[in-house]
Amino acid sequence: MKRFFITIEYDGTGLVGWQRQDNGPSVQQYLEEAALALTGQETLIQGSGRTDAGVHALGQVAHLDVPDKFDARAVMMGLNAKCQSDKVRVLSSREVAPDMHARFSATYRAYLYRILNRPAPAALLRHQVWHIPQPLDVDAMQEAANLLIGSHDFTSFRASICQARSPVRTLDRLVISREGDEVHIRAEARSFLHHQIRNFTGTLALVGKGRWTPQMVQDALLAKDRSAAGPTAPPQGLYLTDIRF
Amino acid sequence: MKRFFITIEYDGTGLVGWQRQDNGPSVQQYLEEAALALTGQETLIQGSGRTDAGVHALGQVAHLDVPDKFDARAVMMGLNAKCQSDKVRVLSSREVAPDMHARFSATYRAYLYRILNRPAPAALLRHQVWHIPQPLDVDAMQEAANLLIGSHDFTSFRASICQARSPVRTLDRLVISREGDEVHIRAEARSFLHHQIRNFTGTLALVGKGRWTPQMVQDALLAKDRSAAGPTAPPQGLYLTDIRF
Repeated sequence: MKRFFITIEYDGTGLVGWQRQDNGPSVQQYLEEAALALTGQETLIQGSGRTDAGVHALGQVAHLDVPDKFDARAVMMGLNAKCQSDKVRVLSSREVAPDMHARFSATYRAYLYRILNRPAPAALLRHQVWHIPQPLDVDAMQEAANLLIGSHDFTSFRASICQARSPVRTLDRLVISREGDEVHIRAEARSFLHHQIRNFTGTLALVGKGRWTPQMVQDALLAKDRSAAGPTAPPQGLYLTDIRF
Repeated sequence: MKRFFITIEYDGTGLVGWQRQDNGPSVQQYLEEAALALTGQETLIQGSGRTDAGVHALGQVAHLDVPDKFDARAVMMGLNAKCQSDKVRVLSSREVAPDMHARFSATYRAYLYRILNRPAPAALLRHQVWHIPQPLDVDAMQEAANLLIGSHDFTSFRASICQARSPVRTLDRLVISREGDEVHIRAEARSFLHHQIRNFTGTLALVGKGRWTPQMVQDALLAKDRSAAGPTAPPQGLYLTDIRF
């Protein structure tokens, strides 16, 4: 058997998320069924990040083991040919050492959150952005974001169901930018807590609207209490963009 | 009554196109029903361009007449609130002189055609681009496009069902560019024939793949015969982007 990393794009709309669950179709299930159809063997496909229902990926990475006769191109083309959903596509594939693990070997994860910031709701992007009609103050959002960068106890920005042992994470970058009608939030870290970026976004949106000051974001962080921070932004604006090893 | 121009974004997926038809929902129908719900009056909404089934718009313009009590903001907000499809959104509205006509007063129309040019099919953009896996030669496509600019008899690039009286049009710009994984074709003219941009695109794609030379595009133009040019590109890559008056 040979181990491959595959890079995956998916549209999370209508899916229960990355991970297999009983209540609906998942990205993992579609890929594992495609791998079974391709290789004739039950195949576990392990992802780098477990995205939630409705969250998208431009560059999820997963690993799988396949018989020696497959090369990288055959893995990519074969999985795409066998995949039963057009919402899930393998962009590329490369062979890696057998001890490489998509989740545990990953040292860097990057996400993008897209806010559509204009008076009218989204038509074309209605499943791909969060619509906020009020003008957002990007400079104030960046000022608040800067207070979150570094190593902190992020209990205030962590879902109550988060299974991570420690609430401490090191946030390397949190960059807010205006891109035409959109406001983009880019977050980079070795790893994130459950809902961390959506909770950052919901809180930073309060700052962007002028309802919170940047200082209030720092107070929320220091409170180490989920109820001290802002609401969880909806899933459809979030994209897993990049994983590195 | 006052006349307004409205600028509209729509996702053409699953719609029969701009114009009302018996075989399914149209953008015009959704907007006319929203105007009826808003004003209590049967309202004709006339668009600048009649896009086909599956074709999108970022900046379609239409006109409608509403009672004097409505201002521009009420027209935009009211139509969005009453519209029964989230695929259709009014971006803005402005009052115009009563003799302004969205179709007949328009002097400039701009379209964008998006090709996803990478080995893997689209996941997120599967209804918003045309996927071509082979690498396209953008320089050759531009060389061919340059031969189409100007005033010509475009019979070779016109749908057989096109109702325009003359096949002569003046093409002002036809610009090909690479944007990351995508190849964009931007076309600008006072007006276009039915399927003209999709037929340009299908033909230019042959050049991009190296199957046609630019000279063969000129030969096709001069043949004044639809069968001399390339195939019609699929609708989902096409966007009506801008109308001017």
